[in-house]
Formats: sequence, structure tokens, C-alpha cells
Amino acid sequence: MKKGSKRDPARIEKRFVYPFSKGKAAGSKDDKNLLGGKGANLAEMCRLGLPVPPGFTISTEVCSWYYEHGEKYPPGLEKSVANSIALLEKELGRGFADPENPLLVSVRSGARVSMPGMMDTVLNLGLNDKTVQGLIRRSNNERFAWDAYRRFIQMYGDVVLEIKAEEGEEFDPFATALETLKKRSGVESDTELSSEDLRGLVKEFKRIVKKRSGKPFPEDPKAQLWGAIGAVFGSWNNQRAIAYRRMNQIPGNWGTAVNVQAMVFGNTGEDSGTGVAFTRNPATGEKHFYGEFLMNAQGEDVVAGIRTPQPIDRLENHAPRCWKELIRIQRLLERHYRDMQDLEFTIENGKLFMLQTRAGKRTGFAAVRIAVEMVKERLISKEDALLRVDPESLNQLLQPIFSPADLKHARSQGRALTRGLNAGPGAATGRIAFSAPRAEEYAAAGERVILVRIETSPEDIRGMQASSGILTARGGMTSHAALVARQMGKVCVAGADELEIDYKNRRMKVAGRTFKEGDDLSLDGTTGEVLEGNLPTQPSEVISVLFGKAKRKKKSGVFDAFEKLMKWSDSHRTMAVRTNADQPDQCRTAIALGAEGIGLCRTEHMFFEGRKIDAVREMILAETQEERERALAKLLPLQRKDFEGIFKAMEGRPVTIRTLDPPLHEFLPHEGKDVRKLAKTMGITPGRLHAKIESLAELNPMLGHRGCRLGIVYPEITRMQARAIFEAACNVAKRVPGKKKPRPEIMIPLVSTVEELRLQAKEVRAVAEEVFAKKKQSLPYLVGTMIELPRAALTAAEIALEAEFFSFGTNDLTQTTFGISRDDAGKFIPLYVEKEIYKADPFSQLDRAGTGRLMKIATEDGRQARPDIKLGICGEHGGDPSSVEFCHQLGLSYVSCSPYRLPIARLAAAQAALR
Amino acid sequence: MKKGSKRDPARIEKRFVYPFSKGKAAGSKDDKNLLGGKGANLAEMCRLGLPVPPGFTISTEVCSWYYEHGEKYPPGLEKSVANSIALLEKELGRGFADPENPLLVSVRSGARVSMPGMMDTVLNLGLNDKTVQGLIRRSNNERFAWDAYRRFIQMYGDVVLEIKAEEGEEFDPFATALETLKKRSGVESDTELSSEDLRGLVKEFKRIVKKRSGKPFPEDPKAQLWGAIGAVFGSWNNQRAIAYRRMNQIPGNWGTAVNVQAMVFGNTGEDSGTGVAFTRNPATGEKHFYGEFLMNAQGEDVVAGIRTPQPIDRLENHAPRCWKELIRIQRLLERHYRDMQDLEFTIENGKLFMLQTRAGKRTGFAAVRIAVEMVKERLISKEDALLRVDPESLNQLLQPIFSPADLKHARSQGRALTRGLNAGPGAATGRIAFSAPRAEEYAAAGERVILVRIETSPEDIRGMQASSGILTARGGMTSHAALVARQMGKVCVAGADELEIDYKNRRMKVAGRTFKEGDDLSLDGTTGEVLEGNLPTQPSEVISVLFGKAKRKKKSGVFDAFEKLMKWSDSHRTMAVRTNADQPDQCRTAIALGAEGIGLCRTEHMFFEGRKIDAVREMILAETQEERERALAKLLPLQRKDFEGIFKAMEGRPVTIRTLDPPLHEFLPHEGKDVRKLAKTMGITPGRLHAKIESLAELNPMLGHRGCRLGIVYPEITRMQARAIFEAACNVAKRVPGKKKPRPEIMIPLVSTVEELRLQAKEVRAVAEEVFAKKKQSLPYLVGTMIELPRAALTAAEIALEAEFFSFGTNDLTQTTFGISRDDAGKFIPLYVEKEIYKADPFSQLDRAGTGRLMKIATEDGRQARPDIKLGICGEHGGDPSSVEFCHQLGLSYVSCSPYRLPIARLAAAQAALR
Repeated sequence: MKKGSKRDPARIEKRFVYPFSKGKAAGSKDDKNLLGGKGANLAEMCRLGLPVPPGFTISTEVCSWYYEHGEKYPPGLEKSVANSIALLEKELGRGFADPENPLLVSVRSGARVSMPGMMDTVLNLGLNDKTVQGLIRRSNNERFAWDAYRRFIQMYGDVVLEIKAEEGEEFDPFATALETLKKRSGVESDTELSSEDLRGLVKEFKRIVKKRSGKPFPEDPKAQLWGAIGAVFGSWNNQRAIAYRRMNQIPGNWGTAVNVQAMVFGNTGEDSGTGVAFTRNPATGEKHFYGEFLMNAQGEDVVAGIRTPQPIDRLENHAPRCWKELIRIQRLLERHYRDMQDLEFTIENGKLFMLQTRAGKRTGFAAVRIAVEMVKERLISKEDALLRVDPESLNQLLQPIFSPADLKHARSQGRALTRGLNAGPGAATGRIAFSAPRAEEYAAAGERVILVRIETSPEDIRGMQASSGILTARGGMTSHAALVARQMGKVCVAGADELEIDYKNRRMKVAGRTFKEGDDLSLDGTTGEVLEGNLPTQPSEVISVLFGKAKRKKKSGVFDAFEKLMKWSDSHRTMAVRTNADQPDQCRTAIALGAEGIGLCRTEHMFFEGRKIDAVREMILAETQEERERALAKLLPLQRKDFEGIFKAMEGRPVTIRTLDPPLHEFLPHEGKDVRKLAKTMGITPGRLHAKIESLAELNPMLGHRGCRLGIVYPEITRMQARAIFEAACNVAKRVPGKKKPRPEIMIPLVSTVEELRLQAKEVRAVAEEVFAKKKQSLPYLVGTMIELPRAALTAAEIALEAEFFSFGTNDLTQTTFGISRDDAGKFIPLYVEKEIYKADPFSQLDRAGTGRLMKIATEDGRQARPDIKLGICGEHGGDPSSVEFCHQLGLSYVSCSPYRLPIARLAAAQAALR
Repeated sequence: MKKGSKRDPARIEKRFVYPFSKGKAAGSKDDKNLLGGKGANLAEMCRLGLPVPPGFTISTEVCSWYYEHGEKYPPGLEKSVANSIALLEKELGRGFADPENPLLVSVRSGARVSMPGMMDTVLNLGLNDKTVQGLIRRSNNERFAWDAYRRFIQMYGDVVLEIKAEEGEEFDPFATALETLKKRSGVESDTELSSEDLRGLVKEFKRIVKKRSGKPFPEDPKAQLWGAIGAVFGSWNNQRAIAYRRMNQIPGNWGTAVNVQAMVFGNTGEDSGTGVAFTRNPATGEKHFYGEFLMNAQGEDVVAGIRTPQPIDRLENHAPRCWKELIRIQRLLERHYRDMQDLEFTIENGKLFMLQTRAGKRTGFAAVRIAVEMVKERLISKEDALLRVDPESLNQLLQPIFSPADLKHARSQGRALTRGLNAGPGAATGRIAFSAPRAEEYAAAGERVILVRIETSPEDIRGMQASSGILTARGGMTSHAALVARQMGKVCVAGADELEIDYKNRRMKVAGRTFKEGDDLSLDGTTGEVLEGNLPTQPSEVISVLFGKAKRKKKSGVFDAFEKLMKWSDSHRTMAVRTNADQPDQCRTAIALGAEGIGLCRTEHMFFEGRKIDAVREMILAETQEERERALAKLLPLQRKDFEGIFKAMEGRPVTIRTLDPPLHEFLPHEGKDVRKLAKTMGITPGRLHAKIESLAELNPMLGHRGCRLGIVYPEITRMQARAIFEAACNVAKRVPGKKKPRPEIMIPLVSTVEELRLQAKEVRAVAEEVFAKKKQSLPYLVGTMIELPRAALTAAEIALEAEFFSFGTNDLTQTTFGISRDDAGKFIPLYVEKEIYKADPFSQLDRAGTGRLMKIATEDGRQARPDIKLGICGEHGGDPSSVEFCHQLGLSYVSCSPYRLPIARLAAAQAALR
């Protein structure tokens, strides 16, 4: 544990406050537990001799003491604070409440981690009717002083006195008063208000405080200070903060620190200013000082965007001495912290002050590049680099994109229509198609397509493949559309429920506008935004290089950095990574992205290709076993060919093939025209076909006649699939060398009891023996099962006796554990996540307490029954970093995910191994 | 452990076979483990001095030894068997293989418990071409002897040599040969074949044996005997027996015994005969000797029904001496075994032989009556009586019935149409209605109705209430139809999938016939049979007396016995029993049947009554919270009135009320006409209403926006329901004395995470405080949750912190644990049960390994977090005896079931406590 993280009862008596000023500080960056993040970094900067406005931090221990003692301050705190203020007064030559040369301070909260809901900031504390005169005199700027004063009252009234908008009020009373004043003065912007106006506003604000709080505004700076300190401590236990802590497992006894710091002003004249900067480019990761500033302005002004800030390098022209110092400081800070820093600074009358430093947020591109380059620069180790990059952010490197400028422009033109779930990241643009055949038609004509459906089904697969992007009105993050889109690497916006799609008239309404089929639409799958018209997209650099469609751009260096990071990941991770794929081209993509095998090949995805669907439908509609066998005989050579393609593409890597899983109903046509056509092909009446289709309909297909239940009722289907697999494997094996010989692993889905697996495994093994005998060739293979139902996990000890491997099907396992249909969850999951009822969407991030506990039971019981059992995961969670970490903790052999999530899984697996 | 149940290695050397003959036997009835059930009872009868054909039993230990030693017999067995045969020869003065006076034996298997799949019986062993002549001479009946011989070869060929029908053959070759012979001889029945024919058949059968087995039929009786012994042992480990043992947790090392017994023949002439009898009436339980016999016949003939057997008391006329002896024996056996016995006897040439005695199977009526009367007779204790009655059989006492004679008659007329699941026992008859309104219409006109639906939904509730019976084409044992029917005590046949129901033309096709609405139909809910036309029904005696509609019939005594058994049950059980009810009249029924509270009151069942449905629909279709609140305000007084009725009826017993649970879609109209009507009422266009209804449709409603997810998204619904409950409770409390004051327990459904419960409980408690303050009255109440999702069970430790009680909703818990929709399970569950993939339908009998393990986790974790947590079950399993036993083992406080299953639950709970 780090210094200060443990409470020392003796010490608390001695020390409540930790002063910092240039060159010396009682704390350091390692004291985050004691001083909070902000306080620790302020102290550290002081120790480094950087120009930081002096101040002090009231430690988190005081906050803990406060709550442990019925919300009282520890005896002696008051004196310590008074001493610290006195020290500040002495250092700065100013006086708290001194009307001639007043000391003004800021008060900020600062917990170990930033926490929404906590009190943020009170600036300009120390102003009152007397000291404002001193500020006027000192700054020689009356308007500035009154503006500072009215801002102080407003901030203090809001966060300390909690004067908010009451029921029936649109704004809080301060804002209302300000608006009234602006109207009366006939001005549009706050900046146009005169010094006189602002003085009047101060008066009005004080009236509001008295009316709403029942007490006059505190004129005494000491009272102001204690009010602010109390507000910070109080906000630690407000509801929002408690809820946030509960969700993020932050202990309630950590407490928050309070930072009290002398004010500096960037808005006192043309030799003052303020800015924010990054030590490297946070968008690209390029190593150059990056940021912006405004002269004669406060931090707020930069954010508010009233004036356009200037690029940081122009600061040289305005304040060359400060610029030089800033350059030195940013270099120092980055080397010191060994990470890219996000800095805030203020220049007051030509003097530079550092107000903040912290690790800077960055894009995925920047994260990868910075991490890899810092290793090259020997700033950090490879392990550090691996742990620095958020695996999820790698997604950005793989997806085509809209340029931010184009997006901004389109929004400003009102072309942003609605927003859905950002189910498949990247950017896509094209013509609207309301059906899969239409999408194929457009694509065949060389046009880019956005497939727009209420929801998608396996019938739409070819249409989805033909489209650049998929947009649905219904369905969640793991709906059919989202799942298939990610596997295909397609852009997808799912569950955009404001869309009103009218298939009949081939029209869609949204945002008051109507779109016809063929109209242009753009999807930003990274944000979930839907935009009118055609926005230009650009392919990701990494993908272009990876698939040999572009050369490495030396300039951006993204690909090199990506490649290096992946190499390091692979050498650190202990879990294998596989992919979910069911087409040879997907296999090749996946191998390029690092796949070491297939974890899930869904045989039914192949069913919609070419002539296969006819045979599939015949099989489903067969009335007798003979009819069914006849249809299966037609299907056999087609499936065999599919598997040959996959085995060839995978070149000896293991291939886990799941036997038929979805409800048969999914394969049947549902529209009158299609039914009539199929009936004609099959030589039966449309009425009879319709009746059969109806009879296959289910109330809850997800919990219906699917998975191995199909194979149990129609074992001939399982036998055909097994035959296709083993014949394909033998055929390929004959033509390739030993290391590339196929390694099939047959997976029985939706098992709830060992007996199901026993029966299905028997069929598979019998076929294998038969094929091997006939082909005079034997290949090693495994038979195992998905663990995707709670009962399978709960009876894993029995199931393991029959299963050579388990693969956790966490999509279905999450559905049944939570009792939630992915396809219907859109109605409440967003609210659940928003209200923090779920910490995260359990379909995106594996729920460890529920689904995870079942996995743990299955892992332990399964291993006890069969110590060498192979364990993997093939649900969508296999590509989610937190879930990958959990799988590592369980000791799984591999994770499997869609091809485009492989880099994420590789990095996440490496991180899990490192942690 | 009983004598002989433990293997003694020393003893096995000494004793392999246990001879029995009149007056003496090496074993007794307590040796079931060693000698099997049949062998032990034969030995016991011998020890009692009863006339049993002598024989011997090869013990189960030999079988175990056989399998432990690579399928070899223990050394010395052969000699022991030879000695036993020699003893038999000596006792009977006949010789094995003696052509003059041959000894013939039967060989039967006999495990501890009877086991399907094991070899059953070989009769007439010892016959060959020589000994058949001896039999002819001894019996003086050539045809009899040849018939015995050909039967022996046929039986031996089938069960020992395993000569069966091969692929492409319709019958086994013996049956085919017999048919060919009959055709050639121009006769219809076996009995018309001549002695000559039969001799020829023996020749032909031997030819078949040689051809099919490759060896000649064994002429040596010793070889025959060892073949049969080997077949019995072999059958212990055939697949069907193994599967049965696995499903029934019978250890494989128990082994089977082999019984070898001298043959006696009831078909040697008019002073011979055979019969079966019960010591009491197995249908009514009346204490009189009951059975039937045939003179000059074999056991087979009684079963085959070629000749009509005579009632047992006429035996006095045919064989007065035997009759007298039989009467003495049956009395002796019943007193000795202290249970009603099922006897088999044969009279050979005027001499009575006992072939079998065992506990007799009986109807529920008989079981109750016999158990209670045997206590009165001091034969057994009250505890014995409670353990003797199968709780499930009590159902028969409560349901109206068809008389067996009427059923038989209807079947013989070809009026039996099809069979579905026997979902709601009893008998019902009435006119077909294809919709709920039509059912109500018929009922209003005073007619009895059978509601026929593809499946039912809450919309049909009033129609179901109006009907005598419910028939559905889809759905399983716990489908909506089955569940509601049982709760209402209605007859129900569910999932009769041969029905083709055509709502549009109001017609139904089945068994090639077409039925119109209004046609008469009869349902036997006890067997699942559907019959054409109107069969007379009779109300159950118990129900008639219980509800004061009839006096106790002294003659049958069923009610008195039932009442006594229930009283004993109540004094022995430790779990309380509650009921699932949501109408005052159901409450009163349930109290009469023993309910001690309501375990599940489904608020939504009330929604379909009268004006309520309009307000419900308004609430659902509301576009804003205000609109919704307006609709809820209309609903409030209606719901309050419902609850007042229930609280009044329950007279201070606890009432667990579940807040709104089902998907809202269920409450909306779906047919065009209804939609237009509702749209008009609501003042919106049918188009808009239709769109809204569509938008509420879900792909998997069972896993959709339902349960507490409704209350989370629309907390105003929960608040309205809570208000209705607490206001009703206060209103009732004012008018009743202390002990009868309402005790509401509010139950939040479908919780998957503690946060949901926390939010909903907060709403409920806030309303309670408000109502109590307003009404100036406070009542104790509880807030708890259903545990009906795996995740709730897995996180019970957290949930228990917010829940004052758990109620296991095992219907939904089973659905999610298995991943099976009750409504769609009909397509595979019957096959699963038939193939023994599931030991039992998990929706009928709680699955202990899966669903049960979750319950155990929840019980343990929940109790650890809150030691005084109240635990109950309110799924349909609460009325299933095996499930009740499991709940007792978990230590639940109560089980709750539909009113008509309360007696079953009471008895099952008593049995669980006694075990």
C-alpha cells in the first residue's frame, strides 16, 4: 500500500492540512489516497519547483473522521486551516478579508478518483462588499472585479447554499435574474453587461440568497471558506455520489480531500491569459506539444467558445518568456509522470501558473502510438505500454471513419436525424434499401447500400453482406443485426426506435422527414448517429495495410505501432484467441487479425447461400423421415463444400463447428409472395405450406424447439451435418501436409442435461467412424458442448463426463440467467444502464455476479469431473476486455470473438495476464 | 440394513441358491435385497405354509459376482443349481429331462424393484421332443402339450436367443410363421389350431431358431436352464435397464435374482383354472375379496380377453374347497403384510397353488379408504397410513368423473378422437366454443361449454371460467390453459396437437371428422382423452360434501376417510400450505381445502373483469405519464375493491400479492374488430392504436418487458397497486377484529438484481406510509420478491438485504434454468420424457439438480444474509409431491399451490416430515 493510504490515528492529531507552494509541499503524487488526485498532483508540481499558486489540501482522513464522528470536524482542524491561511497570506502578502489587498481562493473537492455528483469548484472565495474594492484597486479593472464577485455569489449560492430551480421554475433564480437584466439592458451576451449592471446584479443575487436560504449572504471570508469546506464534505455522501460508489465498488470510507488554492486570474488584461495543452497530440499521438489558449480570458471562456482560442504555438508571439517556460515544464512533466499529460495553466500579468496536470485522455490511435513510442523512448516498459492502452479503443483503428469536420458540418446543416445504439463502429454511407434483395440489387449495380430493417433475421444475411451499413429500429447491442454486423465488420446502428419504417410503401419517417428507398443515408456506428445524405468515409489505415490494400504510411505510424502492440500482446497473453466465423473469407480476415482457430462456426449462417436454402426448406417441411432424409441428401454435398472451404482457410487450426441451432421457423419465408413461390417449387398448395409455417411458429422461439432439441427430435439432421464435417475434413486432409490437416471440434448447442449430449455425441461419433472407415483415413476430433443454459452450468459435473470441451455461450447464458431476450431488451436496458440498475449492459460486459458465477460453477465442477477438459467462450463477450479478464481469471483455454474484435481480445488477454 | 443386504464373502461360497417349498424356505419377505421382490414373497408364502409350487431363487449376489468377474458364474454355482433341481425332482417325483414324467419349470427375473427392459419370463422350460411325450401322457391332453411346447420355443427364442423382427419384417419370425399357419389352416384364432397344426408349428419354430441363431434349438433341459439364467443376468445390463437405473438412481451393483419354479398348469381340464384377486376392492377400497378367474385356462388367457373371466366369488361353485382355502389365504396374507395384496393363483387338477403376492395397486379412492380403515383395524399406524397414500392420487377424489362403463362404451363406438396432455383432471362435457365470448354466451344460456382454443391467454379468463372444460392444441402441462384450469379446478386437455382449429370458419378437424361450434365434445382430463359427443359426468363425492352440496354418504365412506387423512396430515407436517388465488370465491374454496394463506395473488388476473380492462388498456396505451396517471386513477378504486374482497375472504391469513407481471401486450385486443372498437372508445384512429399494439409486440415476451421491469419504467403503476392494497387493507381492518386484520405481503416479480427490488420496495413503502398516515391506521406488512430468475438465486445474498421474504417462482425459474418456454415445449418435452432424457417433465416435477440447485444456493445465501427471511414457493410445483418433499428438505416455511391441489400438498408435506 502506498504512503498515506492507511490511517494513522496519531498522525491525524498532528496533521489535517498539507500545504503546497513553489518548491515545497507536504505531499506528493504518491499521496493520491490522502490528498486526492488533484491535490497530489498540485503538491508534486510544487515539489518539482513549478510555478503553482500556493494553497493547501485538507486530507481525505479529515473527511473520514468527519463521518465517523457524527459530521463533526476533528478538534484542531479549525486552527490548522487558520494557520494555513495565515501562511498563504504571508507568502502572497495579501490578507483574507483585507479590503486593501484581499486574498482570494478557490475551493475544490478532490477524491482519489473523480466522482460525478460531488461538489466541483467555488472560485473567487474571499470577495465581499469590502474586498471587492481592494480587487478593483489591485486589478485596476472595475468590471472584472464586479464580474468576479457576481460569479462567486452565483457559484456559492448554487453549490454551497444549494439554491436551485424550484418546481415550476425553468432556470435557477440567479440565471433568471441574469436573463432579466440582459433583457432590460437590451444586450445578448454577458460580456456586454457594464460594470454598473454587474454591481446591480451582485445586489440582486444577494437578495435572492437571503430570500431562498433565509439568511444573508456571508460577508466573512472565513465563514465563506467553512461553508465551502462543509459543502465538499457533504457532497461526499449525497445520493448521486453514493450510487456512483456502489456501482463502482468505491468504499464509502475513502473520503474526499478539499483543495484551497490562491486565485490567479487570466482575465486581468492583455498580458494575462489561460490555456489547456497536451504533451502529445491526443488525437493522433504524434509527439508535439498540442493545445490552445486565449489571452485576457478565464478558463470558462475557453470552454464556452465565445472567442476562438489560438493554437498553443502562437503563445510564443504573445508571451515568449511564458512560452519558453511552458515548453520546459511540459517536457519535464511528461518525463516525470512517464505519460502524456493534460495541463491547465494561467498567465497573470505576464507570470505563468500551472493549475493542473493529469494523464491526458486520448483516442485509440493516440493511445497505441504513444504507448509504443514511449517504449522506444525508454520512458516505459512493454508491460506498461500494454497496460496503458484501453483494448476497446483499438476498435477505432479498424473502422472506416467520417472526418470530424464533415460530421460537424452535417450537424450544423440539421442533417443529424436520430441516434440508435452504436452497435458496429465505423462510418458508412449509401442508398437506403428496405429489404435484403433490394440491398443485393443495389450492390450488384455497384452502389453502396444502407440496409434499413425493423429488425434483421438470418434471411437478411446476404443483404447485410452486400451493405455498407445496417440500421435497425429494434434490437439491442447483441441483436441479430449487431452480432452479424460486428462479425462481418459492418457498421451498424441498432434499435433506433424513432424510425417509423413502412415496408409496404417502402418509406421511413424520422425527425419529421420522410425517406424513400434509394435515398442517401449515413451511419456513424461509433456514435450511433444517423445522418441524412451522403457523407464521405475513409477506410482505416490499419485495415488497409493489414489486407495489403495500402502501404504503411511512415508519416502516421499507426500501423507500425499497432503491429508492435499486437506482437507484445501475443507474447504476454496465456489464453488463445479464436474467432467466430462461418465463411472462408471471414476465416482469412480473422487469421490476418490474429485468430488461432475458430471458436464458433454457425452452420446455419451458410444455409442462406445459393441453392442451399431450398434444400433447407424442403428438410424443414418434410412430413416423414424419408422426405427429410431426401432433403438432407441434397444438403450434404453443399454443406461438405462449405466445410472444405473453412478447413482449407484455417490451415490446420482447430475449428469448432456448432450443429444446427436456431428455430426452424427462421428459415421459412413469411411473405405471401415468397410462400406462393416456395409452394410451387415444392409442389404443394400455398395453403398447406402456410399451415406448416404457422405450425412452426413459437411464442418464445428463443426458448423453443431449437439447439440440440432439433437434433434429438430429428437425429438425421445431426448425422448429415456430422457426415459433411468429417467427409470435408478427410477430403482436405488428403491434399495438405500434416500440420495443416483439419482439426474439427463438434459442438452440441443448448444442452440442458447430459443425456442430450450423450445421444447427440453418439450420433456424431458413429458417423465419424463410418466416414473414417470409408475414406480409410482417421483424424483426431473432439465432441463437446456449449454451456449456454443455467442448467448446463449447474450440472457441469455430469455433462463433463460426456464433453471433451465446454464453450461458454454467454449470449444465451446471459439471456437465461437474467431472463432477458436480447431482441426485446431495448425497451428497458437503456433505462437500466442510465439508472445504474445494471452497472453495464450484461450483453456487452459479462455479469460476474450472475452469469459469471454460473461459469465459475461450471468451470470448477467440469474440471473436477474431467481435469483435462478444454474450456473456452464463444459468446459476444469474448471480444469485451472486462469479460476477457474474467475468462482469464477462470483459467479458460481460449476466448473466441468476431474477427474485428480479435485485436481487442489479444490485448485484453495480455492485460489480464499482466494484472 | 436388512438381513442379506450386505454381501458376506464367506457366505457367497456357501450359498448361491435359496430353495423354497411348502412350509419352509431359506429366505423371507425381508430378503428383497438378496432374492428380489418376487423371490422374497414366494419364500415368505412358503414359510407361511401356503401352497406354492416349489422352486429356488438364485440370489442377486450371484449377479453381482457375475459382473465383477468378467461375466463368469461363481465356482460352485453350477453344482448348487444341480442340487436344487435334484431337490425339486425329489419333492415332485419328476425328473428334469425325464421323458416319462418330466419336471417343467418357469424362469423369471426378479430385482429389488421391478425394472422395465429386463427379461421377464420363460415358461414350460424342460420341454423337448422327448419330454413333450411325457407331458402328453401325464396330462392326457395332446393339444395342450404341443401348445405348451410351441409357446416355450417361441418365448425362449425371443427372450433368450433374441430372435426378433429384423429390418423390413413386420413381425418376429415366430409370429409370422403362426400367422401363415393360421391362414393355411383357414382359422382366425390360435385356439382353433389342432394338435397336428401345433406339432407342425414346433417343427417350423425349431427351423427358425436354427436359421436365425445358427444353432439348433437346445434339447437338453439343463442347457435350456443355463441359457435362461444367462439371459436374465444379461438383461440386467441391457441398455434399457441401464437407462432406467440411471434415471431412477438404482445402483448397478444391486443385481437381479433368478427364480426357478416348478410349473403348474391351470389349463389341463375343467378342474383346473387360474385367477387374480385383491384382498380389498382396488377401485373403491371397500373391504371385500375382489377378483376374477377362468377355469381351464392359463394366466395369459385372462389377460388376452378371449374368454370373459368370472367374478371371484363364483369360484365357490366351481371349486368349493379351493375357494375356502383361498379365502383363508387372502385374509392371512393381508394381515401378514399389513397391506392390501394382489394375488395370483392357479388350480391344477383341483389343487390350489399361489404364484404371487404383492402390494396391490389401487385408485386414489381406494388408497385413502384402505389406509384409514387399516388404522381403524389397528393393522397400521397413522404414520403408516400417511405414507401409504400417493398424494397425487387424491386428485381423483376431487374431480368430477365419467364412469368407466360410459367411457368404454364411447370408445367401442369409435368416439375417442385424440389424446392430449392430462392437464386438468376430471371429466367435462359440453358444447364447443372457439372463443371466450362465445363460451360466456353459451354459459349465460345455461349450457355447458368446452372452450377449444389453439392456446389461451389472459383475455380468455372469463371464457375459461364460464366453461366446464378447456381443450387446447398447443401448450404444455404448465401452459396458461393448464395453469389457470387447475387453479380454477377446471378440466383441461392441453396440447392436443392433432387438432386443426380454424377460427375463421369456426371449425375444427380431428381424426378425419369436422366439428362445428356448438357441437358436443367430452374431455377426460384424467387421461387426456377427447371424445365425440356428450358423456354424462358425476361430481366428486368429496367436493360435494366439502362444499355442503351433499351429505356424507355412509356407504362409500370416502369423505370421512379423506377428512381423517387430511387431519392426520395437518398434525404431522411442519410446512404451511398456501394457495394461489386471486378471486374471493377462489379464496373460500381454498380455505375449505385447507389453505393457510395466499402465496400468490396475481393482480393481473383481475384485470379482465368488467370495466377494468378498459382502464387497463388506457393505461397501457398512454403516451405520457399524465395520461397514464389518469388511467391509473380509474383503475385504483377497482383494484382496491378486488383486494378488499380478498382480504375479507382470507380473514387475517397472510396474503402475498404480486405486482403487475405479464407483458402489457397480453392485455390488448388483437383482432381487427376489437381494435376498431377500442380505438373508438379511446377516441384515436384504429391505425394509431394498431401501431401502438404492434410496437408492444415482442419476439420473446417471456423474456421481455414484464415483471418489475414494468414497475421500473412506469413506477406509477407500482404506486397505484400499492395504494390499492394498503387502502383496501385499512378499509377491511376497520371492520374486523384484530385476528382477522389483513396481513399483506407485497411481492415484486422477475427481479434479477437487488437494485430493482430496492427501487420498487421504496415505492411500496412510501405509499404504505402515506396511506397509513392518511387512514390513521398502521398494519404490519412485508415486502419481498419472487426468486424466479437464475440471477436472482445466484445473487440472493444481496437481494436478501432488501427482501423480507423470498418466494420461489419455479415456473419461470424452470423456464430460464432449462431455457425452455412452457408454451412451446409441447414439441419436444413429450419425446424427452418418453426417451427418458428428462426423468420427468421439469414443469411438473421440480428438477433438483438444476432448478433445485439454484433454490439451494438462494436458500443458503439468503438465510446467511438475513437469518429470519421467510421462504416459500408459489410455482405450480407447490402442488407436486416430489417437489413438496424437496421444499421440506430445503426448510421452506410454506408451499403454495392452486386450491384443488391443496390436499395433495398437505399430504405430501406430512410425508416429507415423516421421512
